[in-house]
Amino acid sequence: MLFVLSILSWLMCQVVLSPVPQNGIFQYINDHQDEYVQRLKDWVAVESDSSDPEKRDLVNHMMQLTKDFIVKLGGKVEMVELGEQEHPSGKKIILPPVILAEIGNDPNKPTVCFYGHVDVQSAKKEDGWLTEPYTVVEKDGNLYGRGTSDDKGQILALLHAVEAVNTIGIPVNVKFIIEGMEEVGSDGLDKLVEDKKDTFLSNVDYIVVTDTPWLSKKPGITYGARGNCYFILEVQGARRDLHSGGFGGTVYEAMSDLIYLLDTLVDVKGHILIPGIYDAVAPLNEKEIKLYKELEFNLKDLEADTGISKFLHDTKEELLLYRWRYPSLSIHGIEGAFSGTGTKTVIPAKVIGKFSIRQVPNMNPSVVEKQVADYLQSKFAERKSPNKINVTMVIGAKPWLADMNEPQYLAARKAVKRVFNTDADMIRAGGTIPIAKNFEEVLGKSVMLLGIGGPDDAAHGQNEKISKFNYIEGTKLYAAFLQELASI
Amino acid sequence: MLFVLSILSWLMCQVVLSPVPQNGIFQYINDHQDEYVQRLKDWVAVESDSSDPEKRDLVNHMMQLTKDFIVKLGGKVEMVELGEQEHPSGKKIILPPVILAEIGNDPNKPTVCFYGHVDVQSAKKEDGWLTEPYTVVEKDGNLYGRGTSDDKGQILALLHAVEAVNTIGIPVNVKFIIEGMEEVGSDGLDKLVEDKKDTFLSNVDYIVVTDTPWLSKKPGITYGARGNCYFILEVQGARRDLHSGGFGGTVYEAMSDLIYLLDTLVDVKGHILIPGIYDAVAPLNEKEIKLYKELEFNLKDLEADTGISKFLHDTKEELLLYRWRYPSLSIHGIEGAFSGTGTKTVIPAKVIGKFSIRQVPNMNPSVVEKQVADYLQSKFAERKSPNKINVTMVIGAKPWLADMNEPQYLAARKAVKRVFNTDADMIRAGGTIPIAKNFEEVLGKSVMLLGIGGPDDAAHGQNEKISKFNYIEGTKLYAAFLQELASI
Repeated sequence: MLFVLSILSWLMCQVVLSPVPQNGIFQYINDHQDEYVQRLKDWVAVESDSSDPEKRDLVNHMMQLTKDFIVKLGGKVEMVELGEQEHPSGKKIILPPVILAEIGNDPNKPTVCFYGHVDVQSAKKEDGWLTEPYTVVEKDGNLYGRGTSDDKGQILALLHAVEAVNTIGIPVNVKFIIEGMEEVGSDGLDKLVEDKKDTFLSNVDYIVVTDTPWLSKKPGITYGARGNCYFILEVQGARRDLHSGGFGGTVYEAMSDLIYLLDTLVDVKGHILIPGIYDAVAPLNEKEIKLYKELEFNLKDLEADTGISKFLHDTKEELLLYRWRYPSLSIHGIEGAFSGTGTKTVIPAKVIGKFSIRQVPNMNPSVVEKQVADYLQSKFAERKSPNKINVTMVIGAKPWLADMNEPQYLAARKAVKRVFNTDADMIRAGGTIPIAKNFEEVLGKSVMLLGIGGPDDAAHGQNEKISKFNYIEGTKLYAAFLQELASI
Repeated sequence: MLFVLSILSWLMCQVVLSPVPQNGIFQYINDHQDEYVQRLKDWVAVESDSSDPEKRDLVNHMMQLTKDFIVKLGGKVEMVELGEQEHPSGKKIILPPVILAEIGNDPNKPTVCFYGHVDVQSAKKEDGWLTEPYTVVEKDGNLYGRGTSDDKGQILALLHAVEAVNTIGIPVNVKFIIEGMEEVGSDGLDKLVEDKKDTFLSNVDYIVVTDTPWLSKKPGITYGARGNCYFILEVQGARRDLHSGGFGGTVYEAMSDLIYLLDTLVDVKGHILIPGIYDAVAPLNEKEIKLYKELEFNLKDLEADTGISKFLHDTKEELLLYRWRYPSLSIHGIEGAFSGTGTKTVIPAKVIGKFSIRQVPNMNPSVVEKQVADYLQSKFAERKSPNKINVTMVIGAKPWLADMNEPQYLAARKAVKRVFNTDADMIRAGGTIPIAKNFEEVLGKSVMLLGIGGPDDAAHGQNEKISKFNYIEGTKLYAAFLQELASI
């Protein structure tokens, strides 16, 4: 496959760039869309699955292809080596390099740094794909294939936008951080950002993450994400597992204690029962409620997707408020008890409950940690069981919230209006985006998520796709964004 | 190994039987103890692990050794083939034959049928054995090795007792059912008992199971066992697993519902909260309480064994009443949720709680089934969750309780008194002994468990052993039992 890919790489270098006038950039993009689709096909064909050590050469090859294309666009590229990783199998393997690149270096222009990745999740036809995952297939207006949406398609749209705008001269300084380990936790990236904050990243004014979907078919700009406090609640009973025949009815069972404790955390309506947990939640204002009401979101689509006929909230705005704007608590499972199929009459000696709290501004993980531990200890004391418990917070990722009136947000909103003739949906993520919070904290600069994925792209699932509309109009969106950012 | 075993088998046949007077039977046993230990060594050396298809030949060889020895004792032996089993691996393998044997056939004498087995649980040195599991090592008065207690040692003690008593003529008719699949569920045995009830088993007056431990160092006779109703409680939420970032706070989580339901089953003190569950429990009388008070049982030993410093009950008799005489409910685990190590932020779509109720006379599994289902359905209705639940009882094994004043019990108690100069502990099993209930139901005859294992023999664990005292005095116990049964 590598030989074939080398030929494809050579072919890509034969693209002829022709200058176009500024008002003709959208036309330029329209004229080049077949070429854009072809490049997406070439990139998707590289099976850059970062989870598989056997495919590490392909990830490296993908990094090289990306570098070559940025060089072709006139960029200056550094490939930063990150050293080794220890794979879960115990094998030590070399991490793929991270691309640090720049196009333009004018101190009088603002500098925007885009972050994205060219590695992908694993995909196999037998997982339930209708097409070969690494062969892009165009059908009913969609481009199917692993990485079309997450994130090769989004990175290519951005690079094509830079290429198009550059035909008349790029109006801002553009930097890129493009990695090959995002799908398995971005090994080494935090440290790289820290290391480069006084050099490569010192003059960056804005950070844009180009790895995110919209909420609906309407373009969305993401300005916040919930944090996550993940807890491990351990209950220790006997020294060894016991048999329910010989011991049932005679011992304080660790599993009963754990079930009791887990049942004190959240009620049927999703209300968290831990005292004080809602105290720090930023109050909701009228302006925000209005924002939520204006969002394009259809509950029926969500019902069809999940098979759920009744959600905790009946209106679109309530559901989204509880997805993005309020904390939630989910119980994920229990380690140490019988979890297989069939039957086993064990009284487990030590059981570990796993639950997490998605928190929102202005909650603080260390406060949450204390609230949870104090509450569980007091509930357990009420129970008067002689077993031992231990509460540990193993993840304490902070929520992230940007000011949507920062210049880059205004530029992005203007760009959406120009390309799609509609206002952008200002959206948040219910999950956690550690990279956004990390960029913000380390660099102290405004971070924005401007992606072009659709809400139903199945980024990590079977039959991943991006619509051709999103891919091509998304290219225009990035082009317009670069222009708007220069004039704001 | 087979060649070596054949030589051993040949050596065994060279045992010279010498007649002894009746009052000298105990002396005869004392005189032959080295030979008994040697035969145990020979039998343990055969790795008759019934769980391993690769060792099936060794199980068959063990059946053959057993047959040869019974023939040597003057027994008439039939090897009944049971056909094939489907191993969990999918492989079809031939089941070992079951030995049906008899010594004596005098219509004027009572007939006692002993049941036991000569297959063993798997054992490997690296599991934590201090000695080679299949090489009997004598140390500090114990004989260590897999099967020394469960059940080769007990079967051999019985056969040696028959041999000893037979030197002066056996006073009762003796039959044997000896199998090679007990440790993996006695495949085919129930059907065999059913098939033979009008032929081989038609004239059996008493059934004695020789595969059971004592409660303490004092000899015990087992006259009852709890049953088991095993439940599967399924809660279905969404059609697929969801991510707690995207859905936490917006959906009725199946896991919360399951935790809530499991928490309604039993309180911290082990009291079952299901209405009516205690209604059928046979009332306790003064005589029974006295029986429990007289039992030899040390809570400190149990504490040392389990690492538990506080049990649900503070006295020996209360603890044993709740182990044997009252129902208990244990929650074993949850299938379908996250049960691995580490963290995963899943909202599981479908989760299955597993719990079981050990029931006692006069509880009825079908009544228990209805009580549990009705209760859970009503508790779930109170919760007003839109998720779906399903309650299924997948095992409904009845409790077993014999009349301890039946002749075979009286004979066994007299035998204990004669050999050990103490009254027998009349004990029950907290677990389930399906074979006892099955013999009782199919044959309509009195069943008794008369074993000679010690309470700390680690029957299924590492470093299994039988004390030499139990092995040799146990041989006398069986000999005395045969004599007492004849004279009762």
